[in-house]
Amino acid sequence: MSSKRFFQSKLFLFVAVAVLAAALVVVIGPKADTSAQGDPLDWQTIAEERGLTDADLRAAVMTYMPSGQLDEYVMFASGGHSGQVFAIGLPSMRLLRTIAVFTPEPWQGYGYGAGEEVLAGGNMLDGQEVRWADTHHPALSETNGDYDGQWLFINDKANARVAVIDLRDFETKQIVKNPLYLNDHGGTKVTPNTEYIIEPGQYGMPLGNEFAPLSDYEEAYRGMITFWKFDREAGRIDQSRSFAIELPPYWQDLCDAGKLVSDGWVFCNSFNTELALGGIEEGNPPFEAGVSQNTTDFLHIINWRAAEEVFLAGDTVEINGMQVITLDTAIENNLLFFTPEPRSPHGADVAPYGDFIIVSGKLDPHVTIYSFQKIMDAIEAGVEETDQYGVPIISMEDSVEAQVELGLGPLHTEFDNQGYAYTSLFLDTAVARWSLGGENYRPEDGWTLQGTIPVQYNVGHIAAAEGDTVDPDGGYLVSLNKWSVDRFLSTGPLLPQNLQLVDISQGGDSMQVLYDMPLTAGEPHYAQIIKADKLNPWDVYPEIGWDPVTQSVSPDAVEPGEEGVFRDGNNVTVRMTAVRSHFTPERVEIRKGDRVTWTITNIERARDATHGFALPYYNINLSLEPGESITFEFEATRDGVFSYYCTEFCSALHLEMMGYMTVQP
Amino acid sequence: MSSKRFFQSKLFLFVAVAVLAAALVVVIGPKADTSAQGDPLDWQTIAEERGLTDADLRAAVMTYMPSGQLDEYVMFASGGHSGQVFAIGLPSMRLLRTIAVFTPEPWQGYGYGAGEEVLAGGNMLDGQEVRWADTHHPALSETNGDYDGQWLFINDKANARVAVIDLRDFETKQIVKNPLYLNDHGGTKVTPNTEYIIEPGQYGMPLGNEFAPLSDYEEAYRGMITFWKFDREAGRIDQSRSFAIELPPYWQDLCDAGKLVSDGWVFCNSFNTELALGGIEEGNPPFEAGVSQNTTDFLHIINWRAAEEVFLAGDTVEINGMQVITLDTAIENNLLFFTPEPRSPHGADVAPYGDFIIVSGKLDPHVTIYSFQKIMDAIEAGVEETDQYGVPIISMEDSVEAQVELGLGPLHTEFDNQGYAYTSLFLDTAVARWSLGGENYRPEDGWTLQGTIPVQYNVGHIAAAEGDTVDPDGGYLVSLNKWSVDRFLSTGPLLPQNLQLVDISQGGDSMQVLYDMPLTAGEPHYAQIIKADKLNPWDVYPEIGWDPVTQSVSPDAVEPGEEGVFRDGNNVTVRMTAVRSHFTPERVEIRKGDRVTWTITNIERARDATHGFALPYYNINLSLEPGESITFEFEATRDGVFSYYCTEFCSALHLEMMGYMTVQP
Repeated sequence: MSSKRFFQSKLFLFVAVAVLAAALVVVIGPKADTSAQGDPLDWQTIAEERGLTDADLRAAVMTYMPSGQLDEYVMFASGGHSGQVFAIGLPSMRLLRTIAVFTPEPWQGYGYGAGEEVLAGGNMLDGQEVRWADTHHPALSETNGDYDGQWLFINDKANARVAVIDLRDFETKQIVKNPLYLNDHGGTKVTPNTEYIIEPGQYGMPLGNEFAPLSDYEEAYRGMITFWKFDREAGRIDQSRSFAIELPPYWQDLCDAGKLVSDGWVFCNSFNTELALGGIEEGNPPFEAGVSQNTTDFLHIINWRAAEEVFLAGDTVEINGMQVITLDTAIENNLLFFTPEPRSPHGADVAPYGDFIIVSGKLDPHVTIYSFQKIMDAIEAGVEETDQYGVPIISMEDSVEAQVELGLGPLHTEFDNQGYAYTSLFLDTAVARWSLGGENYRPEDGWTLQGTIPVQYNVGHIAAAEGDTVDPDGGYLVSLNKWSVDRFLSTGPLLPQNLQLVDISQGGDSMQVLYDMPLTAGEPHYAQIIKADKLNPWDVYPEIGWDPVTQSVSPDAVEPGEEGVFRDGNNVTVRMTAVRSHFTPERVEIRKGDRVTWTITNIERARDATHGFALPYYNINLSLEPGESITFEFEATRDGVFSYYCTEFCSALHLEMMGYMTVQP
Repeated sequence: MSSKRFFQSKLFLFVAVAVLAAALVVVIGPKADTSAQGDPLDWQTIAEERGLTDADLRAAVMTYMPSGQLDEYVMFASGGHSGQVFAIGLPSMRLLRTIAVFTPEPWQGYGYGAGEEVLAGGNMLDGQEVRWADTHHPALSETNGDYDGQWLFINDKANARVAVIDLRDFETKQIVKNPLYLNDHGGTKVTPNTEYIIEPGQYGMPLGNEFAPLSDYEEAYRGMITFWKFDREAGRIDQSRSFAIELPPYWQDLCDAGKLVSDGWVFCNSFNTELALGGIEEGNPPFEAGVSQNTTDFLHIINWRAAEEVFLAGDTVEINGMQVITLDTAIENNLLFFTPEPRSPHGADVAPYGDFIIVSGKLDPHVTIYSFQKIMDAIEAGVEETDQYGVPIISMEDSVEAQVELGLGPLHTEFDNQGYAYTSLFLDTAVARWSLGGENYRPEDGWTLQGTIPVQYNVGHIAAAEGDTVDPDGGYLVSLNKWSVDRFLSTGPLLPQNLQLVDISQGGDSMQVLYDMPLTAGEPHYAQIIKADKLNPWDVYPEIGWDPVTQSVSPDAVEPGEEGVFRDGNNVTVRMTAVRSHFTPERVEIRKGDRVTWTITNIERARDATHGFALPYYNINLSLEPGESITFEFEATRDGVFSYYCTEFCSALHLEMMGYMTVQP
């Protein structure tokens, strides 16, 4: 506010009253006691001692969550090569929950006696176990193009997999392996009513992961995009109702689904139309140069609703059990069009009204804005030119609405509720705000840069509050920075990422960095930010004996009174309950060579009354949330005495919540 | 401060100047522009909008770290059953670094092609792989009883293992398996010059993990305490110079090393002197009741320096390669004494001057303070009474200095620089401050409760700034709460822990909770807080080609110009460098069945210029920090095309930092 407005404000009143009160104290004498809240201005001394500026103070007040107060938003961030997903509260930037997805995690018991069948879904086609991932793009489920708070999806770039997370308990329910590919990138995104989860490939390879020499790249290697059908009722991806489209072996990159006027379409940027093969060791240009030679690559424009009809009509080929629409069929049926996109393209982001698609070029200081209407008009008018694989190419003259010069290294674009777009600038390590000139946004400003704000350092994606939906919230934006360098105390050569909260609530060039949050995990590639009140997680599992994988009562659940150790030859069944502060039974006496099936049911109903269960030597640790029932199996290959115990500090006598498994030789 | 002091303070001056300045603005007219820092008091409006109290504001200012400002302390917290360790900045309560210790973690490449030999050190004696842990008590290395910032140790309760972390790069260098036991608890603690790392067992079992039926508990089961020798020069635990002491099969619990006057001794509380065996399923009292029947258990008083002499003299037996001083030898050599400790004892914490040992009783509202001098006098005078195993028992009359009633469920005690002790109260979910009455502390206050502060909820350990050293700092204390319940946005039935920062800088009953930090991992059992300036981590590895396991240049490191793929029969050697933004070579063409040895050297020298390396299908992901060199091996069991790439976003052309491994059938 201006100085004049300050003087007129209630703050002036506050200051004036404080001075008057202080003067009064002198006249009347000191009060006997300070209030329970402490001296009303003592914080200022502390601020001075700590060298905080007024801007720091504002930021502190905006991001600080007083003890017991709750955040307004939850940001779901990919955990990059940690293989996990992180739920972070905004504006406090507190890490609320790590969700184990592709990587085993013992606190959650995931992969340590529980969740084994979920993880096994991510095995390679021949059964090879891969127990990490490079998670990239989380996608919240949508209804009518808006987040509905029910499901979260995330892809694994390294091994081309997709996971399904249930937001009732923030746990992973399914992992599927793409049978065509060994890498992906631009997924996951969802169509506006979560009909499909979109997973495009990244680096060209033979479909089905067959061998072909690099010298056969042009003929034998291909790109692809997979549409995974999501069955909301079952809460599962249904591969039998999913399909893929064969694409030229350009490197498809990032996709976004059309919405509202462009519903039914999907848009993906690509690069390496050069079909470069690298080989720096042989004197060739390295990939980084070879794939960036062309002035333009191709924005892929895909009619997924028409593709779905082709798939349902059976006009596909099957590769490793996946139905694939061939490139020729796609072209014949007008499913696929190209339009050029400038130098080293990255990102394809659909504006809130679905009317524009924004593409960045890493080596171009502009963003390029494509008009969906122009593209439709061009297709309607007929497209003559094709690429070498026969895909029709719409000229830029016929597709581009505008270009805006933003700065160096533009990457990704998100939106707010004031008609602004925000684009990350990697080389400038900054975030640019610019106005969308279309009639739905800020026609008065036109397509113009409004301002930039430096971030620290090397921003990749950005995420704005509900910023890729049909109804963005504005207010907050998070810059997902890849390098932190000197922003935090040093922790040796490996440093955390730096997530910076940016205030975008005011217009023009008024953005402000509020807070730096270190994230000590793989780079949080992309994130989505949802209003907290759209989430409705369970406090405890709905019924005692709950199996979180099936989300129903387990037929094996143990009821109090029926616990025991039961033997049938070498098959031993242990039926156990857990409640503060004991397991029943407390002694499990078995023999070496026994095949053990062990069920534990946590019969607690109090929120947070989770029990752990550790069994030494056998690599078992379970997390039994209130009501949960888990069954695990092992062979008693080793004799001795094994003390099992509760690993979740549950009561004053938690240390005594244990038992002995003795294994007789 | 009092109102009078406020009036005399510079704050009054600040307020007065502000009012004068505002008045001046009105007289002179508004300035053209507000400062870059924004309006100097606008934060107050925001605070009002957010419903913050003055206490909240103070806390915000104390805990908020402005963008780019660094913390004063680092807290190393165990990660509980996550198996990891967390480094957290104070006062911001930011999670700065997850240190992978017992559990594989792909962001750090740990267990995904690197660190395999470190993890293998934690295998069970027969080679069984256990890839998680229940980390309990981190211990920073000490010199003269004070943290020296060089090493960190941590134990695994579930499987009786100890890990060594080097604080130059915050990475785990060694895991050792205790050959006597399958569980531990009260370790790690170090002796005052880190001569030994102390690891006591927890639940009684036959030494060496032999089988014995529970009916033989009294004769065949034993307790133990292990003294692991730490070789600072080598940076490794040396088992050949380590020893253990056989103890009665009570459940030894938490140990602390004596210091200054009590240097050379170690003190451990214990429980289950009842030798209870549980068996609720047979109508017996469950363990939680059975082990709490006796009015007192035994504080163990161990002369480790005399024990070391017995060990060096060879008066030991060997069990699974560990030298063990038998219980009889320990008694004969006056290495072990008992003194009673009240109901359900927990914790044994030595005061800063080494003169007192504080023990809590979970079912006793008091803490009991033992005098080291009294204990020495009693031993000198001769001890007649023994327990059933022949261990001499010093009476409480001869050992206790004082008892202080604090509240319900006292657990653990830490210290500050003003002569106060702090004890967690589990059942009251509070932290008590009380005065140490000895001549070195606050003789004017005597042994008296000063006040308590509620925490949320179910506190276990607490950690004060350097609060278990000979020179505590005061100022901050962290309450490590096990339940968070309603303190954060719900994330389903599994909730984070809650670490609360408490201001203890003022005396008396003036403690204040400043901040709630959710920790989304296993319960952070215990923590130590060290001054940040005592740590000297490397910015990058000292030389190119560094092997972080040996902390020296690897003989296999690859220099630029010598990269390539080399074949010798079926043995293929890949020698590769990584630098922004390419790997050399970019093509690795091999054959199915090849045995591959692959070395990658990151030749970067810029801080934070880490490269990842993902190889699909083969479960490989490396983190190559600047200068680091890693070698991994695999057999090419599968033909096809495998796109390897950099997983750490390193530059604008990071996406192009890739290559193809083709495996011919």
